[in-house]
Amino acid sequence: MDGEQHGGPPPRGKCWLVGAGPGPADYLTLKAVRLLESAEVIIYDDLGSQDALGFAGPSAERIYVGKRGGRDSIKQPQIDALLVEHCLRGRRVVRLKGGCPSVFSRGASETAALRAAGVEYELVPGVSSALAAPLFAGFPLTHATLSPSFTVLSGHDVEGTDWEALRGLPTLVLLMGGRNLGAITERLRQTGWAPDTPVVVVRSAGLPEQRVWRSTLGSVVDDTADAGGLSPCVVVIGRVVDES
Amino acid sequence: MDGEQHGGPPPRGKCWLVGAGPGPADYLTLKAVRLLESAEVIIYDDLGSQDALGFAGPSAERIYVGKRGGRDSIKQPQIDALLVEHCLRGRRVVRLKGGCPSVFSRGASETAALRAAGVEYELVPGVSSALAAPLFAGFPLTHATLSPSFTVLSGHDVEGTDWEALRGLPTLVLLMGGRNLGAITERLRQTGWAPDTPVVVVRSAGLPEQRVWRSTLGSVVDDTADAGGLSPCVVVIGRVVDES
Repeated sequence: MDGEQHGGPPPRGKCWLVGAGPGPADYLTLKAVRLLESAEVIIYDDLGSQDALGFAGPSAERIYVGKRGGRDSIKQPQIDALLVEHCLRGRRVVRLKGGCPSVFSRGASETAALRAAGVEYELVPGVSSALAAPLFAGFPLTHATLSPSFTVLSGHDVEGTDWEALRGLPTLVLLMGGRNLGAITERLRQTGWAPDTPVVVVRSAGLPEQRVWRSTLGSVVDDTADAGGLSPCVVVIGRVVDES
Repeated sequence: MDGEQHGGPPPRGKCWLVGAGPGPADYLTLKAVRLLESAEVIIYDDLGSQDALGFAGPSAERIYVGKRGGRDSIKQPQIDALLVEHCLRGRRVVRLKGGCPSVFSRGASETAALRAAGVEYELVPGVSSALAAPLFAGFPLTHATLSPSFTVLSGHDVEGTDWEALRGLPTLVLLMGGRNLGAITERLRQTGWAPDTPVVVVRSAGLPEQRVWRSTLGSVVDDTADAGGLSPCVVVIGRVVDES
């Protein structure tokens, strides 16, 4: 509980890295809504911003830093510099993140830049699709016997991932794994995961267009072949998938 | 986006397993607030219920199923039966969960009971302290090089945990690990974790009384010896802890 909610707007010259959840306003937190309402600058990309921007005030400056429309995407150092620049001008800056800033948000790069510039910042958690997507598909990630732990990883860099270290774990939650799903399932099978291990793929988790596939490690590539692309998706691998 | 927010209250004879986040109203989702406002029965325990109950209507029945005050705690099958009973009476039941129902909430037991009774239910994600506590302590859980994945586990059952399977992972997030922290750090060191591995302990994450300890695997037990108990706490183990 900070002082912001008692009288007066939040301080200026500060950056809030705010988790917007999976997209629908339903999953915004009260704090995210309050910060969006009082923001002077909102720096956003694609994931999670669908409904959140509707809470921005009419005079808020909105700066898009995503990759839509195939144009050259803005690089992370430029985003870092933008945050610093607007804060140093004394403005209340919300850096809107899909899901939760804790999970694959490049938050570490942004907070390092803000710290280096002596700018105040705050990390504001949100609902991560890593935890929400399984619920939308009908099951919790943990289970007393089938899933005493779960491991969240990115499928972005197949070559750079230590697949050996994942051997013997009960449950994997793969983000950004849609494009590399074939290579990923191959690596998992090479490191001891049985082909009949249950898999669920949740595309566009929480959004009206959400689609869910239930399959196995050995069949999921074939079963999703007609999907027309799987991004953005959350893939859960492990026996807990069958508990629903 | 479901139909609930457009006209009319949510349907009756249904159970929502709702994540309340770490406790303060700040981290409730808009959906959780709406469901609490229209609930006819709210079944809650200790974690995460601090502010949420303030959104309940005056006529809502509130049923406490926690362990406060050292009395005999109600057993999980009794909670399962309570949910079914109130839903079968045609009531709108909110089962309030600290954090997110995806993570160590015993949600699988409750949904199995509801399914067996033919009762409609919905899992509603919330902000998990596993992801939020690191942010409150100043760092995101993932990092491009230091933390390409993280593993969330419970410290409740040290003997029953497969510590070998955790060998070589970059980041562990331990929930319910306060009481067994000594035994847990010992097991980790026996399975190859270096004594200088950074550790952060966040007690009462997000609450006004939050306290944070920064230490290492070799020193954390000594460093928290004067804490007067560590529950509830989130412990993060790995090099990402130093990135803040």
